Amino acid sequence: MESKEEVKKKIREMGRNLLKQISKQENPYLDVPIRALSNVSYDPKTKLITLGNKTAKRYLFNVAHIRKFAQTLGVAGLAKQLINEDKHLNIREAFYALKRPVLGADINLADEQEETNAAIEDLELILDASREQLHFNADKGGFVAGKVIIQDRNDVIDWSKLGSGGWSIPSNVEDIKFKKVDAKYVIYLEKAATWERLNEDKVWEKLNCIIVCSRGQAPRGVRRLLQRLNFEFGLPIYVLVDLDPWGTYIYSVLKFGSISLAHISEKLAIPDVKYLGLTPDDIVKYKLEKHKLPMKDVDTKRLEEVSNYEWFKHDERWVTFFKKMVALKGKVELAALTSNGISFISEKYIPEKIKNKDWID
Amino acid sequence: MESKEEVKKKIREMGRNLLKQISKQENPYLDVPIRALSNVSYDPKTKLITLGNKTAKRYLFNVAHIRKFAQTLGVAGLAKQLINEDKHLNIREAFYALKRPVLGADINLADEQEETNAAIEDLELILDASREQLHFNADKGGFVAGKVIIQDRNDVIDWSKLGSGGWSIPSNVEDIKFKKVDAKYVIYLEKAATWERLNEDKVWEKLNCIIVCSRGQAPRGVRRLLQRLNFEFGLPIYVLVDLDPWGTYIYSVLKFGSISLAHISEKLAIPDVKYLGLTPDDIVKYKLEKHKLPMKDVDTKRLEEVSNYEWFKHDERWVTFFKKMVALKGKVELAALTSNGISFISEKYIPEKIKNKDWID
Repeated sequence: MESKEEVKKKIREMGRNLLKQISKQENPYLDVPIRALSNVSYDPKTKLITLGNKTAKRYLFNVAHIRKFAQTLGVAGLAKQLINEDKHLNIREAFYALKRPVLGADINLADEQEETNAAIEDLELILDASREQLHFNADKGGFVAGKVIIQDRNDVIDWSKLGSGGWSIPSNVEDIKFKKVDAKYVIYLEKAATWERLNEDKVWEKLNCIIVCSRGQAPRGVRRLLQRLNFEFGLPIYVLVDLDPWGTYIYSVLKFGSISLAHISEKLAIPDVKYLGLTPDDIVKYKLEKHKLPMKDVDTKRLEEVSNYEWFKHDERWVTFFKKMVALKGKVELAALTSNGISFISEKYIPEKIKNKDWID
Repeated sequence: MESKEEVKKKIREMGRNLLKQISKQENPYLDVPIRALSNVSYDPKTKLITLGNKTAKRYLFNVAHIRKFAQTLGVAGLAKQLINEDKHLNIREAFYALKRPVLGADINLADEQEETNAAIEDLELILDASREQLHFNADKGGFVAGKVIIQDRNDVIDWSKLGSGGWSIPSNVEDIKFKKVDAKYVIYLEKAATWERLNEDKVWEKLNCIIVCSRGQAPRGVRRLLQRLNFEFGLPIYVLVDLDPWGTYIYSVLKFGSISLAHISEKLAIPDVKYLGLTPDDIVKYKLEKHKLPMKDVDTKRLEEVSNYEWFKHDERWVTFFKKMVALKGKVELAALTSNGISFISEKYIPEKIKNKDWID
């Protein structure tokens, strides 16, 4: 990842480039990669959903372009201010900061958050820097425990000494320094209750791992944290989710990226993610048939969509997985493992699956 | 709050009582306070939504009672086991632990979580102990920063040394010990972005306060944490929310309790909660009219409901507040304060409101 100085330099260069165009009396323009679906594809080689290399020129003197042109520059100006002042803004707050009249005119630079969000995404692409590097944050969420010591601003934080709560993961983890990472892998969970079970049972200590949770889809801060633990320390990320299409989708987004954030896949996706969640075979093995929950229409629809993803439908293991899921005619929660004992998940399920390499990578 | 030993004693006494009835050849019964709306009312003296003292006898040998009777005992047995093993279970997991055949019969003790939830609530009332004291937890959520040092299990945790993330609040804070509390008040926030703003600006250090956030409605763990800080250290709780009926409702539940949890009001509600959120007058004072968002039908309906609450409609300050809110024809987010400057909320809005005692208590 680029340093703060490099990101600042990129913003300055973008401005200088425009000034150069102006001094040459050209119509100033920005080269913006196209974020439409037509420019998004799955790359089987990198195993990432990525943006193609189509770009479009955005001109200042063009009535169809000027609003977006000005918004992109407005966002760049705000990013420069934030980096200089060492402050961060949530993208909602950034919208309010930019919702102001332009040069005394009766027109706002932006009227809807969609506009500033799009401008932030464009800027990410133009500068090849994530919004977090530009000091714009998404919402924070998630928590973590494990034998890891980090430095965050002036605080040294030991993730193994935070009691029953854990460390609350911020929206932006770019500036965090890892001082010590004593773990063999990371378990990512979608349910707070499961995390509390594992934490109370000291799973992170007994199995020498890190446990991370955020409810449902992982927010960007959590995804970057997982990615950094994987890229910088080679820790595999095991995704422990319910047996339902939503669990599989959580795994899919972490591993391959998502269409809406395709432009930033390599900054967020983690190819080394493994599925450790409930499988149709587990349902038999751990006697969970009686805890099947009915599939609602919305579940069935989602299952169809997910099983048709490019990266699943050519993978024999996943084809079988989804076939068995359809035959099962139901979904099963990890919480159902409690029927085998309060700490069954900590003492049997996880150690057994890890030991037998019973995951899908 | 009762100690662990006292709670265990209560469970034992309940069992002994039943044994006594059996040995006298009586039909064993439990005296269960009625949780129906007919037994719920607002007490203007205590300022709490509370349960009346109507109870009903629940018999073992009564076809209409036996299922609930058995479920209540099942939950009591599980609670005893959890307390003995010093473990906790989320109420979803507790359901799975209790969804098992009774005495080898072909009938489950419980088939739906509603049943075990109701049994847990009944047990809370029968024993006058919260579910957390019985080692049943709701979902965890929320995070905190401030000059506070706690002990949680074997860890000593300093809430002022947790960087940009803060301490993640567990679902159960009953066993946490406060070792040092150096703060004048608590600010409770509904938006993670606002908390990150305040944390980055070190508001908790500059104003000597504690900042707590959980998205939307505060989960039980957060409510108990706020309540303990208020009851044990006399810290007032300022609720900093958007100007909309959902923000006012968050304040209302924290202060007065809620109808669905009326049976546990005095264990969760905090009469010393003050509204520090955006008011209709703030909109004029801080030039936020231009950031008004349209009221949707669902907002208008909610506003009508909330403004008709017993505890609001006889309070002149709130009557005026809601009247002005209707006249405003819009809602306004705290994030809109960013239009006055990135750190306006930290450097102007909060200090000014606190200094001028510009809150509703």
